[in-house]
Amino acid sequence: MPFTYSFDHKHRRPPMERKDLLGGKGANLAEMTSVLGLPVPPGFTITTDACRAYLVGGWPGGLDSEVTRQVRKLERAMGKRLGDPSDPLLVSVRSGAKFSMPGMMDTVLNLGLNDESVKGLAVQTSDERFAYDSYRRFVSMYGRIVLGLDGKLFDESFEEAKERSGVDSDADVGADVLRELAETYKAVVAGATGQPFPQDPADQLRGAIEAVFRSWNGARAVAYRVRERIPHDLGTAVNVQAMVFGNRDGKSGTGVGFTRDPATGAQGEYGDFLVNAQGEDVVAGIRNTLPLSALRDRFPKIFSELMGIFARLEEHYRDMCDTEFTIEQGKLWMLQTRVGKRTGRAALRMAVDMTKQRGWKITREEAVARVTAEHLDQVLHPQFAEKPSTLLAKGLAASPGAAVGKAYFDASDAAAAAERGEAVILVTTETSPEDVHGMIASQGILTSRGGLVSHAAVVARGWGKPAVVGAESVRISGTSFTVNGTTVREGDVISIDGGGGEVALGEVALTLADPPEEFAVLLGWADRIRKGKLAVRANADNGADAANARQFGAEGIGLCRTEHMFLAEDRLPIVRRMILASTADDERDALEELRVAQKADFLAILEAMDGLPVTVRLLDPPLHEFLPSTEELELEDATTGLSEEERKLLSAAKEWKESNPMLGTRGVRLGVMKPGLYQMQVRALMQAAVERVEAGGKPRVEVMIPLTVTRQELGLARGWVADTVAEVLAGVPKRTARKLEVLIGTMIETPRAAVRADEIAEEADFFSFGTNDLTQMTFGFSRDDVEGRLMNAYLELGLLQRNPFETIDKAGVGELVATAVERGRATRANIKLGICGEHGGDPESIAFFYDAGLDYVSCSPYRVPIARLAAAQAVVARS
Amino acid sequence: MPFTYSFDHKHRRPPMERKDLLGGKGANLAEMTSVLGLPVPPGFTITTDACRAYLVGGWPGGLDSEVTRQVRKLERAMGKRLGDPSDPLLVSVRSGAKFSMPGMMDTVLNLGLNDESVKGLAVQTSDERFAYDSYRRFVSMYGRIVLGLDGKLFDESFEEAKERSGVDSDADVGADVLRELAETYKAVVAGATGQPFPQDPADQLRGAIEAVFRSWNGARAVAYRVRERIPHDLGTAVNVQAMVFGNRDGKSGTGVGFTRDPATGAQGEYGDFLVNAQGEDVVAGIRNTLPLSALRDRFPKIFSELMGIFARLEEHYRDMCDTEFTIEQGKLWMLQTRVGKRTGRAALRMAVDMTKQRGWKITREEAVARVTAEHLDQVLHPQFAEKPSTLLAKGLAASPGAAVGKAYFDASDAAAAAERGEAVILVTTETSPEDVHGMIASQGILTSRGGLVSHAAVVARGWGKPAVVGAESVRISGTSFTVNGTTVREGDVISIDGGGGEVALGEVALTLADPPEEFAVLLGWADRIRKGKLAVRANADNGADAANARQFGAEGIGLCRTEHMFLAEDRLPIVRRMILASTADDERDALEELRVAQKADFLAILEAMDGLPVTVRLLDPPLHEFLPSTEELELEDATTGLSEEERKLLSAAKEWKESNPMLGTRGVRLGVMKPGLYQMQVRALMQAAVERVEAGGKPRVEVMIPLTVTRQELGLARGWVADTVAEVLAGVPKRTARKLEVLIGTMIETPRAAVRADEIAEEADFFSFGTNDLTQMTFGFSRDDVEGRLMNAYLELGLLQRNPFETIDKAGVGELVATAVERGRATRANIKLGICGEHGGDPESIAFFYDAGLDYVSCSPYRVPIARLAAAQAVVARS
Repeated sequence: MPFTYSFDHKHRRPPMERKDLLGGKGANLAEMTSVLGLPVPPGFTITTDACRAYLVGGWPGGLDSEVTRQVRKLERAMGKRLGDPSDPLLVSVRSGAKFSMPGMMDTVLNLGLNDESVKGLAVQTSDERFAYDSYRRFVSMYGRIVLGLDGKLFDESFEEAKERSGVDSDADVGADVLRELAETYKAVVAGATGQPFPQDPADQLRGAIEAVFRSWNGARAVAYRVRERIPHDLGTAVNVQAMVFGNRDGKSGTGVGFTRDPATGAQGEYGDFLVNAQGEDVVAGIRNTLPLSALRDRFPKIFSELMGIFARLEEHYRDMCDTEFTIEQGKLWMLQTRVGKRTGRAALRMAVDMTKQRGWKITREEAVARVTAEHLDQVLHPQFAEKPSTLLAKGLAASPGAAVGKAYFDASDAAAAAERGEAVILVTTETSPEDVHGMIASQGILTSRGGLVSHAAVVARGWGKPAVVGAESVRISGTSFTVNGTTVREGDVISIDGGGGEVALGEVALTLADPPEEFAVLLGWADRIRKGKLAVRANADNGADAANARQFGAEGIGLCRTEHMFLAEDRLPIVRRMILASTADDERDALEELRVAQKADFLAILEAMDGLPVTVRLLDPPLHEFLPSTEELELEDATTGLSEEERKLLSAAKEWKESNPMLGTRGVRLGVMKPGLYQMQVRALMQAAVERVEAGGKPRVEVMIPLTVTRQELGLARGWVADTVAEVLAGVPKRTARKLEVLIGTMIETPRAAVRADEIAEEADFFSFGTNDLTQMTFGFSRDDVEGRLMNAYLELGLLQRNPFETIDKAGVGELVATAVERGRATRANIKLGICGEHGGDPESIAFFYDAGLDYVSCSPYRVPIARLAAAQAVVARS
Repeated sequence: MPFTYSFDHKHRRPPMERKDLLGGKGANLAEMTSVLGLPVPPGFTITTDACRAYLVGGWPGGLDSEVTRQVRKLERAMGKRLGDPSDPLLVSVRSGAKFSMPGMMDTVLNLGLNDESVKGLAVQTSDERFAYDSYRRFVSMYGRIVLGLDGKLFDESFEEAKERSGVDSDADVGADVLRELAETYKAVVAGATGQPFPQDPADQLRGAIEAVFRSWNGARAVAYRVRERIPHDLGTAVNVQAMVFGNRDGKSGTGVGFTRDPATGAQGEYGDFLVNAQGEDVVAGIRNTLPLSALRDRFPKIFSELMGIFARLEEHYRDMCDTEFTIEQGKLWMLQTRVGKRTGRAALRMAVDMTKQRGWKITREEAVARVTAEHLDQVLHPQFAEKPSTLLAKGLAASPGAAVGKAYFDASDAAAAAERGEAVILVTTETSPEDVHGMIASQGILTSRGGLVSHAAVVARGWGKPAVVGAESVRISGTSFTVNGTTVREGDVISIDGGGGEVALGEVALTLADPPEEFAVLLGWADRIRKGKLAVRANADNGADAANARQFGAEGIGLCRTEHMFLAEDRLPIVRRMILASTADDERDALEELRVAQKADFLAILEAMDGLPVTVRLLDPPLHEFLPSTEELELEDATTGLSEEERKLLSAAKEWKESNPMLGTRGVRLGVMKPGLYQMQVRALMQAAVERVEAGGKPRVEVMIPLTVTRQELGLARGWVADTVAEVLAGVPKRTARKLEVLIGTMIETPRAAVRADEIAEEADFFSFGTNDLTQMTFGFSRDDVEGRLMNAYLELGLLQRNPFETIDKAGVGELVATAVERGRATRANIKLGICGEHGGDPESIAFFYDAGLDYVSCSPYRVPIARLAAAQAVVARS
């Protein structure tokens, strides 16, 4: 395989399909040149293969001769030679990876200039000022970008020169001063590097190419890839292209243009241009640009040529394109194109519009495939409208949406301030069930500890409330917090963006959460595509959340966590009484009180989800979660002393305390230790279901046993459930009982359950994969412990490609899921299979689950639209 | 398949091989009758199939008619009829499961007697007293065993009758009184059950058979099976046999006999007999028995017949047999035989003797296969010589061996007392590294908390010191403990048996740890059998343990845990300094101090294991294990206040504290967080190895990375190790460096590592399965949390067949191991595979690992002989 391809190389497959090899920019340049025949300055691409080879073993053998051959070809095409003292060819060198990566090397322009060729350029252009300005720009660019020097070194010299020659504007600096500046810049390079500035254009070119290769592993590029989940082993391509100049004269110019509006999706050209300028001037924003439409008057022929190109690009790419172009002395050159980035609003509008385009159109499947989860997040939640000026801290992006409010450090203070009409952000180390009233009252939540499954994160996601958690640099002390020297006091305004994990000082302007009309159209298409293939349910624990989820399109509840009912302020004392009970009677009494409360909860949920399946998970968390902490009580004991009641609580808390609660007495193990508990829950659920039937409803109940590891365990628990169901139904009229069919199933959330799914399926009507716990146990990663501290290091070092708690680890956890699917179906062909871990709302994971053969995914209510879209995309991808 | 087989049924396979179906007792009776033609009273066996069918669906259809047919056949053989008022047939009914189970139903004798047939018996035997004594015994036995009545009801009536008739001895109670007593007993039964005592022998028989079936699920039987690891789904057989009477006259008698001495293994008959008595009298010990040899004088013909039978039995069973026999009026009847239980000493002697037997002999493979782990434990460790009279508590059997000493509740007090020459048992809630001096000074250790991998358990096993841990009923308070109302104070003598987990009050007599000469012979044979097939290494962390392990026959170290070196009293402050270090310099200084200490440790280990491989695991436990507890420091802070140093420790302890340390920042993750740590350890190890080579030694170093989850992770760590090895070797003479080949490998202890062993093998020269952690993560079981509380309930309820921490869970964890072996070898055919979890010392697990294809097992030093034996047995079983 060659290491280089000229833009006009006749590829066997469309260049667009070779982005792995050519990078995005190179592929698009080749597409425009070799397929569309558009006016593109000639050039060539050095492949990502060459980059990967370089990163492993240094400069690849044979690359030099290939580059030389390509340069010769380019020289022939342009009729100029690189470094020619009379009429030099100049080239640009640009990095271009498969995915666009702002963290990497920028462009080097005007490469090929040296002390001799600059004179030729001056003669050829009859513009000495232009030639020396180009030269000094090249030296400083090369110094900064290729040699890694501080840009200030050059800027200072330039300012000094302006001062010395008594001019204010850059444009007024004359040719002589610019010639001197070129000399000064070269001296700066020599001084800083100990080497003279390279005069041989071949050396310059090799230096620039190597710099691009190296930039792949630069700190910013690596961090960008981690953030954007781009694999570290792709490498980048390098594009070497003949220079054209938009700054030659009044018949020259440069611009950027979109084939339609990337902000709104409105049809018609959109963009900016500048007369007599180079591309960087447009981007830099130094001069005021003109709207693209102004080109119509100024350069009518060029404008109509450009509009023709826009139409061809849209038709060819079947999408909105983003372009860069230059006009050199009346001739239009296309420098770059790509399918353009767009806002969520625009993405929805374009996708729907393009299905009805004249001349060419996309299918509804394509439309659905083009909208991303991020697009939907943008229209569903407020966001920072601009980059905040004072970013205080970064934390984990726990619940999307942005919020502005006054910082309060205590739940009750926050609630009181909200009562007074203030917008409030609750700032606290971590939250617990006792803080819920303050969390409800707040616009957003910021915690300094905890991971993506901490109390704050889970509760906020359930409510669709913005939250940033685990912002470790935030040091809270009393009613203020300090972060990197800045102190924020109670009442100070801060802004948070829970979609990006950002915390900013002061009020940041927010975009509105405002789904356009195309939102419903597109999701309707998505639903038709995935119908009967992959259902979407929601995780919801109460009637309000269930109703909300249904509104977002959930087709049932995949996970109703009953422990959240236990943690409510009015329930906790009863739960504690049950745990402390010294006699069977006391325990039964407490359970009976809980039954009454749970029944009301279930009633509300079944009503909200009438006609749709509701999977209720029996109690899962370790009992000590319902008890106060031993540390606090012991401290109190040693200082102010404990009441009799507190002493009992301390003793129970000690008894139930565990070294590794994640692997302790929880799930079905609780049922084994406290046999009345699960029966009580099933009784409450069935009584609620009976009441719903009698009120004319259609409840569909699925009872789920958590944390199973053996068939025998599930058999025992299934017996409890079945007996209690039978007992409740025995006491109601036959026609009511007939309407209630109850499924009994289990979570598959331990590796053992996955491996032994064949046996476990003998006792299960359905499996629901608990991929959070399955991931924790398969990796031996406690989320609470490793997510803040270790995960970033692991991602940055490339020890993990992805955070396995965000996107399912296909090779490890995924294999266990696939094994369980296969074995479960081998035992029971019609077993119902779903997933209710956090991965149920992650598009890439959803695609995996569809491929693995699951029947449904379940996620938090606000994530349901995204899951509906991702499910449809998974179906499209496989069809 | 029929539900019944007569003893003389001609089975196609030897009955001995049908124990599953016939039970042990039934199979042996059939073997003696149908194969050996010995004089056995006729009878039949009801199969375990019938029992299983009964337990699932009640009395099996067709069983009644089969039993009737068998009874008819028995009646024909004996020329008597069941219930015949003139000459009745009497039968015994006995349970007999595949494995001997003392927890189950005993024997019912004399079944078939009723108000009429008792008269016939009296006439036929001309012994009215005998007949009515038999009847009243039958009624009370049936009442107790079949009907479940309290035996006291009958005993009281008997005492009253003796008093009324003014006799002292049972033998003096006359026939009239016995007849009356039979009436009284029947009235007792009627009163307690509301039903008259069954008179129809068919009803009696069916009642007895059902009682045997039911007894399979009796509480004692279930508990026994849990303890002895017998599956719950086997069921029991029932044996119905014609009665013969050893208590008819002076020419009658009964006895138990062994074909050689079960205590010492000495050749020649051994046993007891009684003239004119029934079997139960021998066992009950009411009358003084005669030694079996006395039979020679008393019944010379019978004696010589019996000796002939003994010889035939030994030749046939090729083993020592245990028999019961009865002489009825001069005729010898064999009632039962089985391969006899024996002590460890006897087992070793017999196994070796029988390879040299005249006439018949066993092979060395058979000899090796016959000695069990328990046998070796008996000769390797002291044991309770008898059942203790006051058993205080049961805990977990953490480290085998028994000890007697005065209870001390504090490590320093224990050490001081030992200094004064007292034998000491350290009693404490749990131990920590700070208690080590007291543990060393003690004869044994008793803790009230912690599981089989708690600090106390691991350390004690390493030293071969008796330990009972997690004795939850022991409530320690200051310098005393209370258990079920008994209080033991400091200085009181207690005894513990760490092989059985027993704690007794006072001094219990102990057997000696005293391996006979056959021990070395047999293990030598075992070694030859397993040579080149399955090696045995030891887990040892210091020179003394390594030397000890080598003496026990270890062929290397499979796991050297470096954290134990960190926990030593003089090291801990340095470790803490490293953790607290605020600058890179401070950290480097602390690491340097640790390097010096570790090098000395490694030197001692490599010297002790010279020429054998030593696998050193780099630091594994979470850092907070080296810090004081936050609870204690916070308490101190709130009360007496903290020093500056302590305040720093508290802050570090808080920083490193984890919710689930088992799944937290440990293993290779530590290496990622503290990059200098692993390099320091490897440097120390390699410097020690260099020193050994220079001293003429032959160190064989294997470096092991713990807790790997991805290939990338291991690749990174392998790089650190390889670089450090290269760096050390670069500084020594070439001929020294050439002698040092270092293997680099990893633990496979997370489910992910097992599943992705193919990738991980790319970076690993060897795998060592950490089956402790693998079991914890596969099940989601934290040993510390579930082993005390939950495991017993799970075993008793049959939710688990075995404690997966003792014997590997073949279906779940085992499948992951097998997957990893297959995938690891697919990548690297010659990868070395071992296991260093606790399962490495468990015979059944060792057999699994051999079948799975591992190259070695590694276990604690004192367990090495057992592992050598078990490894050989695994080889024999597969060959």
